[in-house]
Amino acid sequence: MEHTQFETHPSRYKHWKLATNGAIATLKMAVDDEHPHKPGYELKLNSYDLSVDIELADAIQRVRFEHPEVKTLVVTADLDKVFCSGANIYMLGMSTHGFKVNFCKFTNETRLYLEDAAEDSGLATLAACRGTTAGGGYELALACDEVMLVDDGNSAVSFPETPLLAVLPGTGGLTRLVDKRKVRRDRADVFCTTAEGIKGKRAKDWNLVDQVVPRSKWDEAVAARAQVLTEKRAANFASGPAVELGPLESKITDDKFSYKFVEVTIDRAGRSANLLVRGPDSAAPSNLAGEGSNTWSLRAFRELDDALLRLRFDLPEIGMVTVRTTGDRKLVCAHDEALAKDASGFAREVRLLQRRVLRRFDNTARSLYAVADATDSCFAGSLLELALGADRFYMLIDGDEKIAVATSVANAGFFTSWSGLSRLGARFYGEPKQVATVLSRGTEGDISSEEAEKLGIATIAADDIDFADELRIAIEERASLSPDALTGMEASLRFVGPETVATKIFGRLSAWQNWIFTRANSTGPTGALTLYGRPERPQYQWNRT
Amino acid sequence: MEHTQFETHPSRYKHWKLATNGAIATLKMAVDDEHPHKPGYELKLNSYDLSVDIELADAIQRVRFEHPEVKTLVVTADLDKVFCSGANIYMLGMSTHGFKVNFCKFTNETRLYLEDAAEDSGLATLAACRGTTAGGGYELALACDEVMLVDDGNSAVSFPETPLLAVLPGTGGLTRLVDKRKVRRDRADVFCTTAEGIKGKRAKDWNLVDQVVPRSKWDEAVAARAQVLTEKRAANFASGPAVELGPLESKITDDKFSYKFVEVTIDRAGRSANLLVRGPDSAAPSNLAGEGSNTWSLRAFRELDDALLRLRFDLPEIGMVTVRTTGDRKLVCAHDEALAKDASGFAREVRLLQRRVLRRFDNTARSLYAVADATDSCFAGSLLELALGADRFYMLIDGDEKIAVATSVANAGFFTSWSGLSRLGARFYGEPKQVATVLSRGTEGDISSEEAEKLGIATIAADDIDFADELRIAIEERASLSPDALTGMEASLRFVGPETVATKIFGRLSAWQNWIFTRANSTGPTGALTLYGRPERPQYQWNRT
Repeated sequence: MEHTQFETHPSRYKHWKLATNGAIATLKMAVDDEHPHKPGYELKLNSYDLSVDIELADAIQRVRFEHPEVKTLVVTADLDKVFCSGANIYMLGMSTHGFKVNFCKFTNETRLYLEDAAEDSGLATLAACRGTTAGGGYELALACDEVMLVDDGNSAVSFPETPLLAVLPGTGGLTRLVDKRKVRRDRADVFCTTAEGIKGKRAKDWNLVDQVVPRSKWDEAVAARAQVLTEKRAANFASGPAVELGPLESKITDDKFSYKFVEVTIDRAGRSANLLVRGPDSAAPSNLAGEGSNTWSLRAFRELDDALLRLRFDLPEIGMVTVRTTGDRKLVCAHDEALAKDASGFAREVRLLQRRVLRRFDNTARSLYAVADATDSCFAGSLLELALGADRFYMLIDGDEKIAVATSVANAGFFTSWSGLSRLGARFYGEPKQVATVLSRGTEGDISSEEAEKLGIATIAADDIDFADELRIAIEERASLSPDALTGMEASLRFVGPETVATKIFGRLSAWQNWIFTRANSTGPTGALTLYGRPERPQYQWNRT
Repeated sequence: MEHTQFETHPSRYKHWKLATNGAIATLKMAVDDEHPHKPGYELKLNSYDLSVDIELADAIQRVRFEHPEVKTLVVTADLDKVFCSGANIYMLGMSTHGFKVNFCKFTNETRLYLEDAAEDSGLATLAACRGTTAGGGYELALACDEVMLVDDGNSAVSFPETPLLAVLPGTGGLTRLVDKRKVRRDRADVFCTTAEGIKGKRAKDWNLVDQVVPRSKWDEAVAARAQVLTEKRAANFASGPAVELGPLESKITDDKFSYKFVEVTIDRAGRSANLLVRGPDSAAPSNLAGEGSNTWSLRAFRELDDALLRLRFDLPEIGMVTVRTTGDRKLVCAHDEALAKDASGFAREVRLLQRRVLRRFDNTARSLYAVADATDSCFAGSLLELALGADRFYMLIDGDEKIAVATSVANAGFFTSWSGLSRLGARFYGEPKQVATVLSRGTEGDISSEEAEKLGIATIAADDIDFADELRIAIEERASLSPDALTGMEASLRFVGPETVATKIFGRLSAWQNWIFTRANSTGPTGALTLYGRPERPQYQWNRT
């Protein structure tokens, strides 16, 4: 099997240059043609693939943790006439359907993290596009708070996907255009079918960009705008202390991913895996930052994030994941409380990272059954979110009521999913009062399996006569169902209630793009994606669906 | 080409029996096995196909217009142990991808019309399920206000689509389960993977149904509940007068669909068509009901509805539709005003029908360019909605400013699209004040092409030196693009802003279902849909996407 490496470090970046200068950081895209994620294509003209996006995700994360003094992140490019030409088409053309979909999902998540940093960490983001800004390149720019485009009579922003490739601007482009930037929908229609894009004054008039600046005044204008953004933002957010994100020290084999607090055990024959998360091994820290990136709340969730990405990319045939926890419920809650009480910027970043990881969990296209079947199970507080986010939660009823769940401040609304609902809010969408009932009951102590079922936390609680069989059958049945239907079903049931730009991206846009990726007009032998860069013109099947 | 017949009449129904008894109507599903929409399968066990759904849509419409005394519609079945077993699987298995998608869309629209009737016409709907209620059968029940299920130890509601067919409960099922009925999402997960479904007390406890009733008390309980619903609703809504929906008298050939007020001219070589809507040919009626179903506001929109359905089903290769209007703008506005002023139930039904047809227009997967290029163009009031709903609106600038648009009360918010936004609201999602500006300007008289462009109503206005070429190129370019990418793009750009159960159904659920319908696990040679009813078991590709 493949072992994709999601961990990286600025010292090893091949495609980005991160530099900080006081409150302003500059992240320059400088894609190394010759180091694609896999051999077979060149990353010309600042086009990107998974390896480029892994570095981008790492850079955003590190700015938040390691450079808390930064208030504005300028995203720009090292090339003279190109900002970014989007996802590499040859890479897409030679990728499997599953890889394409997972690649787009990861890219979308990373872009949403830029917006999460802007909104919740006060990190203003400015896309400074000094050249061609095409496709995914423009989608990256759209994920920033503001977009500046050079006005040189040539450089345009564009979405050439539909006219040239017969696919969508799928990493959030369509949604951000009309829902975030509120570009008029008929203009968006013109824009999305104009391969050469729109430049200069019209780009500004249509709100495709915020500012157009002549080449001669570029550096000065970008610096000035970054300064303005920095001054606007400065006062609102606690900052630091800086904490370096240390290595995860994972041990990855074909049968098991092991980390300090996370372990994924793979059962290939059963097409299933077990994801185990360990609770803290020490008391809640009195000085959170003193523990650095080893503090449980940060380390366990970073490990979980890495494990989820490996599951998605490297274990496509594993459809069913059971999720278990082990440890001391009180300790988990104590760590949650310590984090919530700590007003530092670092504590905020840890909680936001946990929130992002939990959203990655929600958004993982595998059947997820949480299982509490041992007395040291610790679905408590931040780990209870895993049980609430899973498709089902099975609990064993033991005689002594030692198997139980617990709530903490972490369940009280901070950990919203992409829909904006908390996981308790989503679970009790039909009985909103039950959220307060559960939280209030939780303050009185652990909630045993039987009570958890009554309260609606557990899907199924059973005693030891029935439990093992019931769970085994549920897992086997699930693993026997069509992976595609399950993906569509879970994507619909997990995201009840309100819609946001994020849920529109994952639920609506991604679903259309998945469909389009399967159609002959894009990926068939004479499809536009397949023939891109070749002399032949695509041959389309003309029937509308 | 095929010529699908969407017009029908209760006297010709093969699959439903409509009976009214005072304020309560009963619509009984009694599917005639031997009269499927196309030969090749039998409609056993009250399974449905397009022909069944066409009759259902007709029946709901006729109750609203022809039986305004009806306050409660009981949807039930003629069979003893089956309410409805869902969409006919053999029909799905032998249908093209495009047909499957259009069939599901029509079915979804019809079900939303049940909800529209409940919400806006005060027609309470009660699904009385005296037997197996499976798949699309349960989805039909979910579209009703309330669901009663017989409690006989056997009859269950179920969504066997995922376990048995490797597809989704795609006609709104997943969305209605968690968003409308607010079934707890982990329970919904269990339910949707349990082929045999859930019956009796548990169905009630999980809120899958509203009431379970023993067989011995069935008739009495249904009658009592219908009576309660009738009494609850009675006072709120104006009622009648009854107006019979006359025949449309369409003339359909391979090149042209002609109606009194609507004409579709087909250019097969250009893969395009022109949809022409004529304005009223007489003054606004002083007695609306006196004109019966021939009154322009009703007849023109019923014709448009029929034309849109024929476009979808019978002209799959026509990707590009120009929309033109001809007539007197003042007359259109006068008819709109007459309708809006009329407080009768009939006038309300006409406006609601217009709203539904405009929503069908929004939801038609063809590129739609509205074109005003003649002095008798009449994009005014209710017809201006077509220009606002189209992907683009091209206007010719003539020297005398005779080419113009006009607004009426019809643009002021009543004609919401499925998102809940008006078409002006969607167009000016980024500048909400512009809605009032346009409406206020409209009260002063016609708005010429040049001004319409400045106000943001026209996408492009051009004088006669450029207009013809610009439009021709825009049409040719559009017709040259991949139909699949355009469908996904238009579905994203047309529905900006808020999401509702309806937009979730069309945007999210349908997109997933479209994708799943293309996957080998459902429709490949060893897919579950393909092999349904045969002894072989489906063979799945296990990779998760």
